[in-house]
Amino acid sequence: MKETKLIQIQGQPLGNGALPIIITPLVGKTTAAILDEVAAIIPKQPDLLEWRIDFFEAIGDSKAVVETALAIRQAAKGIPVLLTRRNATEGGQPLSIAEPAVIAMYVAACEAKCVELIDYELSNAPEDLALLRKVSKANGIAMIMSYHNFQMTPDAATLDEKFAAAAKLGADVGKVAVMPQNERDVLDLLAATSRARDAFDMPLISMSMGGIGSISRIMGWVYGSAATFAVGKSSSAPGQIAIEDLRAALAVVRQGVLGK
Amino acid sequence: MKETKLIQIQGQPLGNGALPIIITPLVGKTTAAILDEVAAIIPKQPDLLEWRIDFFEAIGDSKAVVETALAIRQAAKGIPVLLTRRNATEGGQPLSIAEPAVIAMYVAACEAKCVELIDYELSNAPEDLALLRKVSKANGIAMIMSYHNFQMTPDAATLDEKFAAAAKLGADVGKVAVMPQNERDVLDLLAATSRARDAFDMPLISMSMGGIGSISRIMGWVYGSAATFAVGKSSSAPGQIAIEDLRAALAVVRQGVLGK
Repeated sequence: MKETKLIQIQGQPLGNGALPIIITPLVGKTTAAILDEVAAIIPKQPDLLEWRIDFFEAIGDSKAVVETALAIRQAAKGIPVLLTRRNATEGGQPLSIAEPAVIAMYVAACEAKCVELIDYELSNAPEDLALLRKVSKANGIAMIMSYHNFQMTPDAATLDEKFAAAAKLGADVGKVAVMPQNERDVLDLLAATSRARDAFDMPLISMSMGGIGSISRIMGWVYGSAATFAVGKSSSAPGQIAIEDLRAALAVVRQGVLGK
Repeated sequence: MKETKLIQIQGQPLGNGALPIIITPLVGKTTAAILDEVAAIIPKQPDLLEWRIDFFEAIGDSKAVVETALAIRQAAKGIPVLLTRRNATEGGQPLSIAEPAVIAMYVAACEAKCVELIDYELSNAPEDLALLRKVSKANGIAMIMSYHNFQMTPDAATLDEKFAAAAKLGADVGKVAVMPQNERDVLDLLAATSRARDAFDMPLISMSMGGIGSISRIMGWVYGSAATFAVGKSSSAPGQIAIEDLRAALAVVRQGVLGK
């Protein structure tokens, strides 16, 4: 089996090369609530914090965004931060601001270099994807290009296309998260991840969501997913497992698969 | 998803209805060695003991077999016993006795009612399979019909045929254990198990072996495997996980999949 490519920041693998790295979401509405979350999560030592800024009330205020990001960084004690506005069409919160303001927010965050990674959906306008790719690269920020489907698991060709689109657009990481309607859909997502690992020289994140899909959060790394999302304080998607439990299960799976 | 059918003995589900049940092998060469294994394993509370009698030096002495089985039963404190002569062609130990003596041993064990289940490979002669099916049924002993491939994972049609053959021959349980050559072979085994669950009104046991296959030992039950093999004292096949570790991982997977 081909080796799973690790997610890197400035040439260094995240989580000291852990496979998979563990990402925990921050979903507070205010700076104070977010910093409470960070304080609760840091002792659990995730490898990356995902700040889900679609939950943040002041998302339209770029100055507040940058200041909060810097406060998160200070509180996070070295754990890097991924900035994600999850589109409401892909499972995120409804926003009070339009897309140009979202782009302005991302650009401000990149230029302030207040986060290490950003995530932007493949379903967005090509010119917005291109602009954020350019700005993120210019500022040394890694960019995830993502696809989410909270209703179903598309067919194999569609899953393949999503990873291919991310690779073609120059993403640093391609992410696919889909909902299974039955247990075989989980196998389809894992198989597609494995094909993408063979096809592209790009780190991947993938998961099948919901109850049945939760098994992919534990062994998706065997199929090429470099990261898995766990609950630090609050969940951001169905099927996420508490970080302590996930870590315990991962240790058993690693021992079984790798003998270490 | 269709419910996974549980393995039953005399109308009662094994392991108080646990899904999956945990089976640990006994691989001692002598009665004394086997009883040492039982003593070490019982505190770990597996749901079923598989006595791998192909390791037993006195396999050709039916009286010694029955006496040892009764000694295991006494030591096992209520944990039922599965009697398995694993054929050397399917990963078992080379035997000093020929097949008619193996059949005589199985018949003696069934008639003495000294075990709760037997396992016999689908690759054996049809008349031997038919005879053991008849004798086991007459004595209230459940019968597993099994297929093992320690080299590779056959194609989907062949996997389907193995489960179908067990169902057609009236097995109480159909078992398929195969070796993956890559991580996608594990998905094929799980998919075949899921199809067999849909197709047959028969409990199933399946696993993908070796390092990569070990993930199937943790989440094969989601796809229809009613049992998983774990190491109590000694392993009997590649990829088996220590019972304590398996149980810890199963608890996390169950919580994720079932919410309990």
